[in-house]
Amino acid sequence: MTAGPPLSQAERIARLRLARTDRIGPVTFQQLLDRFGTALRALDALPDLIRKGGGHGHTLPPEGQIEAELEAGERIGARLIVLGDAAYPAPLAAVDPPPPLLWTIGDADLMARPCIAVVGARIASAGGQRIARGLSQQLGEAGHVVVSGLARGIDAAAHAGALPTGTVAVLGGGVDDVYPPDNADLYRQIAEQGCIVSESPVGARAQAKDFPRRNRIISGLSRGVIVVEAELRSGSLITARLAGEQGREVFAVPGSPLDPRSKGPNELLRQGAVLCEGLEDVERAFNTLRTLREPAADNPFNHAPDDIDQALIDQVAALLSPTPTPRDELARALGQPIGVVAAALLELSLAGRATLLPGGLVSL
Amino acid sequence: MTAGPPLSQAERIARLRLARTDRIGPVTFQQLLDRFGTALRALDALPDLIRKGGGHGHTLPPEGQIEAELEAGERIGARLIVLGDAAYPAPLAAVDPPPPLLWTIGDADLMARPCIAVVGARIASAGGQRIARGLSQQLGEAGHVVVSGLARGIDAAAHAGALPTGTVAVLGGGVDDVYPPDNADLYRQIAEQGCIVSESPVGARAQAKDFPRRNRIISGLSRGVIVVEAELRSGSLITARLAGEQGREVFAVPGSPLDPRSKGPNELLRQGAVLCEGLEDVERAFNTLRTLREPAADNPFNHAPDDIDQALIDQVAALLSPTPTPRDELARALGQPIGVVAAALLELSLAGRATLLPGGLVSL
Repeated sequence: MTAGPPLSQAERIARLRLARTDRIGPVTFQQLLDRFGTALRALDALPDLIRKGGGHGHTLPPEGQIEAELEAGERIGARLIVLGDAAYPAPLAAVDPPPPLLWTIGDADLMARPCIAVVGARIASAGGQRIARGLSQQLGEAGHVVVSGLARGIDAAAHAGALPTGTVAVLGGGVDDVYPPDNADLYRQIAEQGCIVSESPVGARAQAKDFPRRNRIISGLSRGVIVVEAELRSGSLITARLAGEQGREVFAVPGSPLDPRSKGPNELLRQGAVLCEGLEDVERAFNTLRTLREPAADNPFNHAPDDIDQALIDQVAALLSPTPTPRDELARALGQPIGVVAAALLELSLAGRATLLPGGLVSL
Repeated sequence: MTAGPPLSQAERIARLRLARTDRIGPVTFQQLLDRFGTALRALDALPDLIRKGGGHGHTLPPEGQIEAELEAGERIGARLIVLGDAAYPAPLAAVDPPPPLLWTIGDADLMARPCIAVVGARIASAGGQRIARGLSQQLGEAGHVVVSGLARGIDAAAHAGALPTGTVAVLGGGVDDVYPPDNADLYRQIAEQGCIVSESPVGARAQAKDFPRRNRIISGLSRGVIVVEAELRSGSLITARLAGEQGREVFAVPGSPLDPRSKGPNELLRQGAVLCEGLEDVERAFNTLRTLREPAADNPFNHAPDDIDQALIDQVAALLSPTPTPRDELARALGQPIGVVAAALLELSLAGRATLLPGGLVSL
């Protein structure tokens, strides 16, 4: 996403509608924008694409649903930021694929400042919470905005420590989904002094499936992720893994082997995370930090024809398997230009006959 | 030290006497053996060497002193092992320079088994002591002999955990110097079931200057050193540094940044120590371990003449400064063979006009 002219209001609403369409996840959303340039043109082309891909019974969300989402946002004073808006945070746009949109409450400009995530166990020790609070305060005073997930324990302590200097809470449900109830006061303070962010529609209650997407945004907004206390199988370790995949620095606060909540950070240290006892460790790492991975500049659809032959679509479909396969491998197998195969795969995915994955991979 | 024929009793006593001579530390001891082949011949040559180096007032320890040391050892049932004895532990012989001798009480064969050191803070937390004890028990059951320093806290807990499977306590004072008094019971148990080791004469009380030498033996006997709790400036971190220099693996048990006793191990982790939460971490590291550094095979004195010119000795002395200088740099500066310069330096060191350092370095 390089900076372009401001999007029209119609295009912004079309992006919201495209993002809310069944079977259109962030990968397909990105590819439709790449192929058609705008969401308005993509929406126009969609029924035909779906039919050609062999799908049926697949429809766009009714305009009323989209209007209702916009009105719900307006009612609570939330702001919609779509991919392509100037306010869309650059580090998040560099994620592959970027979330199509964000709803925000509060000061969205915080996301334009250097952000760092502090995450960890819900059932945290008193010491762990003290570390999270103190670290976030130090980070805030040094100019970092602290991002976390408004969960109990470490997340709440991290937000609390950074409240005076700037903190961003990313939710799994809508921006108005105050959860857990213990954090209602904290939620209110962040809405007033910080920023609440979510990819979900206003009014949506958080479900388990929302948290991986939420975690991707936490790490995607941030230059680095600090894990304070976490068990081995935990959302915090998933956030750390996503951060690594996104080319962000992973930090871990070490802990005693006697506490099971140290297992997560200690395992991250084994895997090469930066040991973090305080601000100094963060600054040292950033001073020698590799640059963020640049978003892929090449658009595979650059030389795609407007219309893809139906026989070719079926040939591509026949090559797919449940194992993710690189798009360019399919192109070589068929002796076809990558743009043609990418366009065929896009139509198959909209028809529910293929799943587009990050990094140009595709599976059945 | 490659295995040779057993040393005669006279030679073994000569090695003890040589080691107890003023100005003869481990480096000089090793070089005298290299130059003269035996301690008996080195003792014969010594008065002449000292005189030629420009020293005076320097004498061998009286034979009565050496006899008294041997008798004191015999009285308490201690055993003398000199460098070159079959019982001298191979990993310690690979240290540059190796300690010339060890006094032992108990089962000296333990040192021939794979050893690992567990060391840490004297004023240790209850948790730290529990970790040290549990880890040592695990290590012992897996076949490792646990080496430590019989200090309060972590050392004592490590010995206690490995008492049933085999533990070696290395002391700063003589092998009969029971210190601290709290550990008198533990000392007795180790003397009966394990092994007590020291480089110091029987009867000697530990002094501050003895501990760096003691720490060198702890790491030198071991394939690796595990640091459990330690402040930043502590003997345990010195032992870890020595272990690194000796090519041994350094392990650190992580701890919370809230406890100052975690600073030491956490700093070691930053510097690349292997994170250790239990036996598995140790075994994994040893399975991929670099081999121990081999002792240098070349004897610089191989082609040295029997007699070094007095003028040359003074030329070498003139080149020395307080900054450690490689021996071969001096040889190049003088256009002399390395063996000639090494021999001149040996004489200067015996005369107190040069200090021989490990790694072929020398200073004023």
